[in-house]
Amino acid sequence: MAAQEAVHALREALGSQVVQLPEEFGDRRVVDWSGLPGGVPLAVIRPRDTAEVAKALHICSEHGQPVVTQGGLTGLVGGANVQGGEVAISLDRMNKIVEIDPVSSTMTVEAGTPLQVVQEAATAAGFYFPLDLGARGSCSIGGNLATNAGGNRVIKYGMMRDQVLGLEAVLASGKVIGGLNKMIKDNSGYDLRHLLIGSEGTLAIITRAVLRLRPKPTATATAWCGLPSYEAVTTLLSRAQARLAPGVSAFEVMWKGYYDAVLANLDTLRAPLDEAHPFYVLLESVGTDPVRHADAFEEFLGEMLEAGVVSDAALASSDSQALAFWAIRDAPGEYQRFIPNHAAYDVSFSIAQVGEAAQRCDVRLRERWPDAIVMIYGHLGDGNIHVVVDVPGMGKHDHDEIDDVIYDVTRDLQGSISAEHGIGTKKKHFLHFTRSDNDIESMRAIKSALDPHGLLNPGKVF
Amino acid sequence: MAAQEAVHALREALGSQVVQLPEEFGDRRVVDWSGLPGGVPLAVIRPRDTAEVAKALHICSEHGQPVVTQGGLTGLVGGANVQGGEVAISLDRMNKIVEIDPVSSTMTVEAGTPLQVVQEAATAAGFYFPLDLGARGSCSIGGNLATNAGGNRVIKYGMMRDQVLGLEAVLASGKVIGGLNKMIKDNSGYDLRHLLIGSEGTLAIITRAVLRLRPKPTATATAWCGLPSYEAVTTLLSRAQARLAPGVSAFEVMWKGYYDAVLANLDTLRAPLDEAHPFYVLLESVGTDPVRHADAFEEFLGEMLEAGVVSDAALASSDSQALAFWAIRDAPGEYQRFIPNHAAYDVSFSIAQVGEAAQRCDVRLRERWPDAIVMIYGHLGDGNIHVVVDVPGMGKHDHDEIDDVIYDVTRDLQGSISAEHGIGTKKKHFLHFTRSDNDIESMRAIKSALDPHGLLNPGKVF
Repeated sequence: MAAQEAVHALREALGSQVVQLPEEFGDRRVVDWSGLPGGVPLAVIRPRDTAEVAKALHICSEHGQPVVTQGGLTGLVGGANVQGGEVAISLDRMNKIVEIDPVSSTMTVEAGTPLQVVQEAATAAGFYFPLDLGARGSCSIGGNLATNAGGNRVIKYGMMRDQVLGLEAVLASGKVIGGLNKMIKDNSGYDLRHLLIGSEGTLAIITRAVLRLRPKPTATATAWCGLPSYEAVTTLLSRAQARLAPGVSAFEVMWKGYYDAVLANLDTLRAPLDEAHPFYVLLESVGTDPVRHADAFEEFLGEMLEAGVVSDAALASSDSQALAFWAIRDAPGEYQRFIPNHAAYDVSFSIAQVGEAAQRCDVRLRERWPDAIVMIYGHLGDGNIHVVVDVPGMGKHDHDEIDDVIYDVTRDLQGSISAEHGIGTKKKHFLHFTRSDNDIESMRAIKSALDPHGLLNPGKVF
Repeated sequence: MAAQEAVHALREALGSQVVQLPEEFGDRRVVDWSGLPGGVPLAVIRPRDTAEVAKALHICSEHGQPVVTQGGLTGLVGGANVQGGEVAISLDRMNKIVEIDPVSSTMTVEAGTPLQVVQEAATAAGFYFPLDLGARGSCSIGGNLATNAGGNRVIKYGMMRDQVLGLEAVLASGKVIGGLNKMIKDNSGYDLRHLLIGSEGTLAIITRAVLRLRPKPTATATAWCGLPSYEAVTTLLSRAQARLAPGVSAFEVMWKGYYDAVLANLDTLRAPLDEAHPFYVLLESVGTDPVRHADAFEEFLGEMLEAGVVSDAALASSDSQALAFWAIRDAPGEYQRFIPNHAAYDVSFSIAQVGEAAQRCDVRLRERWPDAIVMIYGHLGDGNIHVVVDVPGMGKHDHDEIDDVIYDVTRDLQGSISAEHGIGTKKKHFLHFTRSDNDIESMRAIKSALDPHGLLNPGKVF
């Protein structure tokens, strides 16, 4: 068997410490958090440095052996799952911080380093690494890069691609590309870095990266606002960006259906305002001057109340009060407790279209399932909403129908079927809702150019 | 002749209004600002919309006819010059603003629109378009995209690639890719947009773009600082970014040699400080709250003086004083008056290495040419410096030797031979100083995948 020969050659070249067989890696987790089916890899390769990744890929390439790259396995679209017949290359041993350069404000890390380790090392060095998501303790920087991770602070700091100056990666052939550049400006030929970021392991294996560090914010102001209409929500966003800019670090909007459902079901949550409103916004701004920043934030909020943009607002007077506001926004982490069998979507639109998109989803879902629970919330500053749906006795057929409703709305309003989670296997049949045939054909041509035998993460994205 | 047939077919399909022959376009300028040699195109094609670009490229593709894309022809590396045998496609008729969406903060434009038109339309709509460079009146958005233009505000707002949400382009085959997306987050397959940005017309012709608009800053503070050492300069940068962040909108450093040369030769300039210093920094910060912003800026400057980071400083008390500071930084526009025959470089390094790089260039140039004028200045917040050199009686041989000095330093310190100007033909023989053989091979593979017959801007970049 070709696959057995490949595994044998890998083990010969890299040793049994690096190349582990199923009987050796035992009950190691080899599937992501998506819940999608995933097989057991023929072997798990755990290289200790870039040279070992290159050696492994060179051998796989010679044997035509397909490869799945695995980081923290926290993805939500099946992107790191084995389809059948692949070996897995895990970056879990390449988890070191190589260097912090305080003058250049950079941190050089190996791709297997967990996000939280990077965040903490940045803080210890007097800096801030802004990317943040719920999986921070488990997800790896390489996975964050492969999926162009987003999260809560995108409105101010951008996506993962905006946090990277240099990228080193290994092609299917075993050739190393990119490097540990620290230049903010570099217009010397094609930007391979941005091509690899978000390519979900299908073009190369990212091995090391130079991350950009930011100044640590020293002042944070947080408010919970109730608003009368979607128009008021977008007005608040644009005024906040104009007045507090570029301090706005979170602008999380929650539709009433979301708010009512989480408050009714999670008794640890407290309503921040006395009355009900059609929309709620968690507004956060960061700065570097505690007194001036707090004054400006409060003044702004007062003006928005006076102008009727905001109907009512609560200003967090302590960190714990701010955390209590965030707990309402972070309630999706608790969904399993009250809607274990839900369908969840991660879609984006132009900011102007988010309100229309949310309304169309809500109306169409309720028409079909009058008892549906429809919860909509998201990062409005980025045009990104999450839609969570539960219908009584939901089966596979219902789930497929809900997919169609959500993705039809996304296509009709020129949105994206994946704002931040990626495509993997979960959304690949809907890729053409967001990307044209010519785009997909171009992606395939690029894939063939860099991975001519289709060995890297086969069957993913397209 | 195949070329004559191609021109004939183009003229048949698109008409003589769109496809103009040399006797018709007459003394139209067809070379860029680089001063590098450029030929006369076989025809200038001036499409009125994306469909006409697609039609033209489809015909060129069928006839194997090479194409050079031309925008405002303000490039500095020969990227838009005809090498011989190409037709030119000029986007000068596609110069309309398609739409401004104030809720989504976007502007959709055709690629031939001049940068200044975009800036003014943004301002008129109550927004700000931050990309700015000297060529603003002539350069086009398409050219800004093809070269990933930089300029003075990169430290705060990023390069051209950071100003774009959607991109529509036409491949050599005539197929249209991308689109007018307004999503800030979109992780649905490979990011073709970032691949095309900075590819200097070798992969596709950019036809339309959705630009991101920013809130208009309403407060600006500007200071001219004298500093004792390069270490003090980097300290001022990191403290400014921590304390004023993210308001720092310019951090322009000038070495003494630059300052002395421009003040000695341009009698319109006035020294902002009484005494001489080894380094000068023009520091600018923008905000949205005039009173609080001015107070914070002055307070910060006082602290830097007290700490000895800054030896002396002048705070601009009026717009005209700020402009007088900027005139010293913008003196390169006047070089022609006192060093008409100079060599100029646009290189970048990690911020920590800029000081060392500047010193090596200066020392090595003076060793070889004791009477050399060496002027170094740049955008330190981006690691980008410009080096301008004049040696007595400079000939081609001297120029080549100076190239070697500067690019050797760049290679040795892992810098980039092109921070913002691009590669074109001017720097392509030095591309391997910044990019590895594997990188260049990958670029060629991608080029072949998207433009298999090598028809788009042949001979450029690599």
